Amino acid sequence: MDLDGVEVLAFDVFGTVVDWYSSVAAEVAELGLTAGDGSAVDGGRFALAWRARYAPTLHRVAAGELTWAPLDDLHRLMLDDCLAEFDVRGLSEDQKRHLTRVWHRLRPWPDSVEGLTRLKRRFVICTLSNGNIGLLTRMAKFAGLPWDCVLSAENVGRYKPDPATYLGVARTFDVEPARVLMVAAHHDDLAGARRCGLLTAYVERPREFGPRGKDVSPDPANTLHVRDLRDLAERLGCQ
Amino acid sequence: MDLDGVEVLAFDVFGTVVDWYSSVAAEVAELGLTAGDGSAVDGGRFALAWRARYAPTLHRVAAGELTWAPLDDLHRLMLDDCLAEFDVRGLSEDQKRHLTRVWHRLRPWPDSVEGLTRLKRRFVICTLSNGNIGLLTRMAKFAGLPWDCVLSAENVGRYKPDPATYLGVARTFDVEPARVLMVAAHHDDLAGARRCGLLTAYVERPREFGPRGKDVSPDPANTLHVRDLRDLAERLGCQ
Repeated sequence: MDLDGVEVLAFDVFGTVVDWYSSVAAEVAELGLTAGDGSAVDGGRFALAWRARYAPTLHRVAAGELTWAPLDDLHRLMLDDCLAEFDVRGLSEDQKRHLTRVWHRLRPWPDSVEGLTRLKRRFVICTLSNGNIGLLTRMAKFAGLPWDCVLSAENVGRYKPDPATYLGVARTFDVEPARVLMVAAHHDDLAGARRCGLLTAYVERPREFGPRGKDVSPDPANTLHVRDLRDLAERLGCQ
Repeated sequence: MDLDGVEVLAFDVFGTVVDWYSSVAAEVAELGLTAGDGSAVDGGRFALAWRARYAPTLHRVAAGELTWAPLDDLHRLMLDDCLAEFDVRGLSEDQKRHLTRVWHRLRPWPDSVEGLTRLKRRFVICTLSNGNIGLLTRMAKFAGLPWDCVLSAENVGRYKPDPATYLGVARTFDVEPARVLMVAAHHDDLAGARRCGLLTAYVERPREFGPRGKDVSPDPANTLHVRDLRDLAERLGCQ
């Protein structure tokens, strides 16, 4: 099976389609949080600290230490830990709830809406994210992302890279795994998809973690390596 | 809670948003099926016979006589029974598979795309159908239905009117049931939603079953009674 047989494009979302770093950093900066010693909290550092708790928290779920919960709930747990780490006090319950939902208000990368719109003309385009369905749906409205379908780890009650997530996309659309192209800015996500027989496209997102940069070297195991979603549309012949 | 508190509109699809009768009848007529005695099969009669097997088949699943399966698979079972009933032979496996997927190729009612587009500006609009996710997604692409999110009986592994389906919408979006308005052309579907605390809007679709017509009398238990989806958009203040 090669790219000609692909019918469905499944997209990782955080970092691949939307810029979580600058979106979270901006909202945190706007809140004007201060630490216990009176110093201002840096929005970018807080965003990185929050996201750094993501993988370990999902590992705890996979290991059975935490029971399955939608990512909104896990984001709240991680936020509480971050507020403690930065010694920030005095946020009201409403403010914490609103801040947790910053992950519903992430801005797309400049190429995302155009790229997806072009790809949608020829393929079924869906999410395959660890974000819960409600989060992904509200984000799509906020950012103007034209998904055909919102699929999530929530559909199978397991987080990526559990094989059930990738195989679930193929089963949902009743196609062989090789007719699904997984699109992500993370090699480990793509490796998980590849082990299940999906094709894979790596998207360079050198600013995913902000100014500190990110290694975006190709992995020859991927079917495609693209600069962004406009580039993906070009490579797949979508005008 | 009244209509001012509504955040999510959940739509029944077959009959409410799309015209299954004329779509199925037209494809069956185009196939030019003939019965064993050489007479031509009437597309409209075949469409009604196929759909008449729907409720009893879902009852068998609810009763545990049939194990859960996506509606695509149940549509195929019902098709095989209909072909036997009409004494139609000689369809190839590919033709049967293609015909089963006629339910992915249903045309919208003339008001549906405009109505949904207007409602989408203010509300989260999602499906809540017994159709499986793949079926609903492909139908949305075919018919141009601008869903924010495709939710299905498949998400909870139960068919409407099981309470898990209606409550699942509220849980997915983390809102109270009374913030969800269920929209359907069938009073029994709306009664199921109402028992779970959702608000309800009945849509008149007098031609759902073709020329034989349908009683579209109001039930005062519903929150709203509307002519079509343009009318619903008016009533909810969506320009």
